[in-house]
Amino acid sequence: MATPAPFLHFVDQNAQKFVDRLAQAVAIPSVSVDGAYRPDVIRMSAWLNSQLTSLGVTTQLTDLGVHVVDGKELPLPPVILGKIGDDPKKKTVLVYGHYDVQPAEKSDGWDTEPFELVEDKETGRLVGRGSTDDKGPILGWLNVLEAHKSLGLDLPVNLRFCFEGMEESSSDGLDELIRSEVAKGNQGWFHGVDCVCISDNYWQNTRTPCLTYGLRGIAFFHMTVSGPGRDLHSGGFGRVVHEPMTDLIFLMGRLVAPDGTILIPGVEDMIAPPDAEERAIYEKLDYSIEDVDETAGASIALSDDKATVLMGRMRMPALSLHGIEGAFSGPGGKTVIPAHVAGKFSLRLVPPQTPASIETLVVKHVKEEFAKLKSKNTLTIELMGGGMPWVEDYKHWNYEAARRATEAVYKQTPDLTREGGSIPVTLTFAENLGVNVLLLPMGRGDDGAHSTNEKLDRSNFIEGSKLIGTYLYEVAAINA
Amino acid sequence: MATPAPFLHFVDQNAQKFVDRLAQAVAIPSVSVDGAYRPDVIRMSAWLNSQLTSLGVTTQLTDLGVHVVDGKELPLPPVILGKIGDDPKKKTVLVYGHYDVQPAEKSDGWDTEPFELVEDKETGRLVGRGSTDDKGPILGWLNVLEAHKSLGLDLPVNLRFCFEGMEESSSDGLDELIRSEVAKGNQGWFHGVDCVCISDNYWQNTRTPCLTYGLRGIAFFHMTVSGPGRDLHSGGFGRVVHEPMTDLIFLMGRLVAPDGTILIPGVEDMIAPPDAEERAIYEKLDYSIEDVDETAGASIALSDDKATVLMGRMRMPALSLHGIEGAFSGPGGKTVIPAHVAGKFSLRLVPPQTPASIETLVVKHVKEEFAKLKSKNTLTIELMGGGMPWVEDYKHWNYEAARRATEAVYKQTPDLTREGGSIPVTLTFAENLGVNVLLLPMGRGDDGAHSTNEKLDRSNFIEGSKLIGTYLYEVAAINA
Repeated sequence: MATPAPFLHFVDQNAQKFVDRLAQAVAIPSVSVDGAYRPDVIRMSAWLNSQLTSLGVTTQLTDLGVHVVDGKELPLPPVILGKIGDDPKKKTVLVYGHYDVQPAEKSDGWDTEPFELVEDKETGRLVGRGSTDDKGPILGWLNVLEAHKSLGLDLPVNLRFCFEGMEESSSDGLDELIRSEVAKGNQGWFHGVDCVCISDNYWQNTRTPCLTYGLRGIAFFHMTVSGPGRDLHSGGFGRVVHEPMTDLIFLMGRLVAPDGTILIPGVEDMIAPPDAEERAIYEKLDYSIEDVDETAGASIALSDDKATVLMGRMRMPALSLHGIEGAFSGPGGKTVIPAHVAGKFSLRLVPPQTPASIETLVVKHVKEEFAKLKSKNTLTIELMGGGMPWVEDYKHWNYEAARRATEAVYKQTPDLTREGGSIPVTLTFAENLGVNVLLLPMGRGDDGAHSTNEKLDRSNFIEGSKLIGTYLYEVAAINA
Repeated sequence: MATPAPFLHFVDQNAQKFVDRLAQAVAIPSVSVDGAYRPDVIRMSAWLNSQLTSLGVTTQLTDLGVHVVDGKELPLPPVILGKIGDDPKKKTVLVYGHYDVQPAEKSDGWDTEPFELVEDKETGRLVGRGSTDDKGPILGWLNVLEAHKSLGLDLPVNLRFCFEGMEESSSDGLDELIRSEVAKGNQGWFHGVDCVCISDNYWQNTRTPCLTYGLRGIAFFHMTVSGPGRDLHSGGFGRVVHEPMTDLIFLMGRLVAPDGTILIPGVEDMIAPPDAEERAIYEKLDYSIEDVDETAGASIALSDDKATVLMGRMRMPALSLHGIEGAFSGPGGKTVIPAHVAGKFSLRLVPPQTPASIETLVVKHVKEEFAKLKSKNTLTIELMGGGMPWVEDYKHWNYEAARRATEAVYKQTPDLTREGGSIPVTLTFAENLGVNVLLLPMGRGDDGAHSTNEKLDRSNFIEGSKLIGTYLYEVAAINA
């Protein structure tokens, strides 16, 4: 079945309406990592649910119970499960997305208010927290649904939805829900799903669409050093007490070298070096050092060799130091000796690494290094969240349908890529549903997810809505 | 002239009124390092000025012009110059204090609202930002003035006041003002000053009053590493780009060893080791490792040898790492690669070290270490503020008067101490006025200036008010 021209036309005609709806979604600061915003995350779930039901989707707001944040019990935002279509002659596609976002304050360096979608008319950039990660892609599906409802068109496949509100906060509770739904067999929401489609990553560059078949895993650590009973004045206590910051900086400095090499014994050894054939794959991708520099906003790539840089993202583990909680972080100066400081860092993992195997190595190394200090401070180190790395079969019909849809909409053959980031739910779906999972990105490599001035290009939002609609027709048409 | 009994009696009778006035002062969040609070700092100057004039002091609010904070021009808070008494037969005492305070947020770990003075009735602690640093001591002088005015008593000396609002922010503009007033000769506010008294430091412990004749200097640095054009997602960019945090942590880890030894070549070499005689001075002070641990709130002293610990505070340089601006500092996790990070650290200096000589060594060392990284990030390092170390002649009559006053009020001979902290204006007064400068602390070693739950004990506030009043009578009585 070819993609109906009226569908594509409808998306173009209603582009501004779709952008306005995205502005509504961005205006809700659904920050999941900060408990103070929990009511907004829940408000966001209600907004999205009402959009889905008004477009004919049967939904269920699934209560995941509560969790404890900073000693306070908070309700987890619900997972929205949805279904539309139940035709046994059609394939069934499960769509995943998340309606929560990363924290953002204008003072972080945003040029505009982060929770106000601002369109730069010159560049077509839609700037706002969540524009690309992941409200834009979720709203792409609403656009597809609205087009079909308005035009009176049948969807070419049965659709199932799973939209969560804790993706930026370790997807608390989601894995259990997926397992429990799968365990219900034909009574569960995921019964009969033939494949999964997730739009929660990005093109490698700003010009070439891609399909993504691999993700790095993640292991996120908090490492806390505590000593004095309270913050101290560095005048009275400098060179008098063991300073937690001195110990913490020592430990953080023993995790990763400035060239990116991970200093934790055993971590690098788990990864075999690439052979010439594997290296060739990366050399062929439509990606350059200039692309890295463009998306990073500066000439800052770790190497001048393209394959090295791409392998650094796709097939090598990485360790990033994110920051310190409890130390002085404001402008100006403050001559404080902070009493408790927590270093935050994470590793990106590739097969065969797992959060558990990495945790063992990290904890052992950090404790050994701390013991060398003979400090009276105390150390705790904890794995706060983790996700397994994932690699999919990209020769599957699910990928073939996406390739054809991309060629139809963008007139380009997509690159096949592995992604440096982590979407742990990908693996949960793959393992529990036993079906092929496709990552079909909507946004570009310079969108700045998790960063200041996050944006989604208007054209990616509109053409991306056509892409996912066309993908459904290609799924329906393909010989599975 | 003996201290009049009615003065001492008045202070006791009006204790609650004095505490209430301190509460008014604490309620004004006169944080000088954060431009957002500048209107409050200026409001604080108006409040203090009105108190002084109502007690008979002639004042001048001295405009120091403007300075630039984060690209924005801000008015500097005025220095309040004051005078009361002009009798050529009396000595003239110059009193210095500062009405600005360190930043404080309840979320930093305060048990109560920082800008609300809360009295713990059980312990007599007056908890609030600025209670001890330096609003309590300033208000001690108001208490003395009020007693004399209410009782119709003449002050035994002429008094001059110099109260500034930028002490916690490098005393911007004050040195120039002092120099310019001194240059005016008998037309200047400081003409005829015989000695200076500053209450802006603390007892070494919680039981023994002290007079302080030495201070460490300070050199405060910002070290900024910048790379990407914006914050990046660690999934997409981990092991792809040079991460500013990795470089900064490397550099911060090369400044000070966990045992307190400064790693910057040349800094330790400037200080001769103590001989047996000097060591004996420190062994005799009423101070123990338990005192350090009590004021620090934990068993955390760098050594189990008392003299080593005291010398670490009083006659050795120190380097403290205060924190990082621009990195993730909130609760929870955020998988960000920050684009610009600024490490904040300071050194406490002892003679013959100067901010300028230390700056040379620090900048050279940091740049050499950074060059080793071969990083594409850029480094800037800047001395943000500095103060010279200072040592005074403690055999001067100014100290003798303070010793007698302490013995009269506290029935104890004060310890003679050097302080680990820095009050740069001390040296400016000493150098420009050419008179003896006394540091006469009001609060205790566990007051927590610059820290959470800063407090001043009620008894120190009340007895301390008697102490500075009595000191004036001893100054008047002594054979100078």
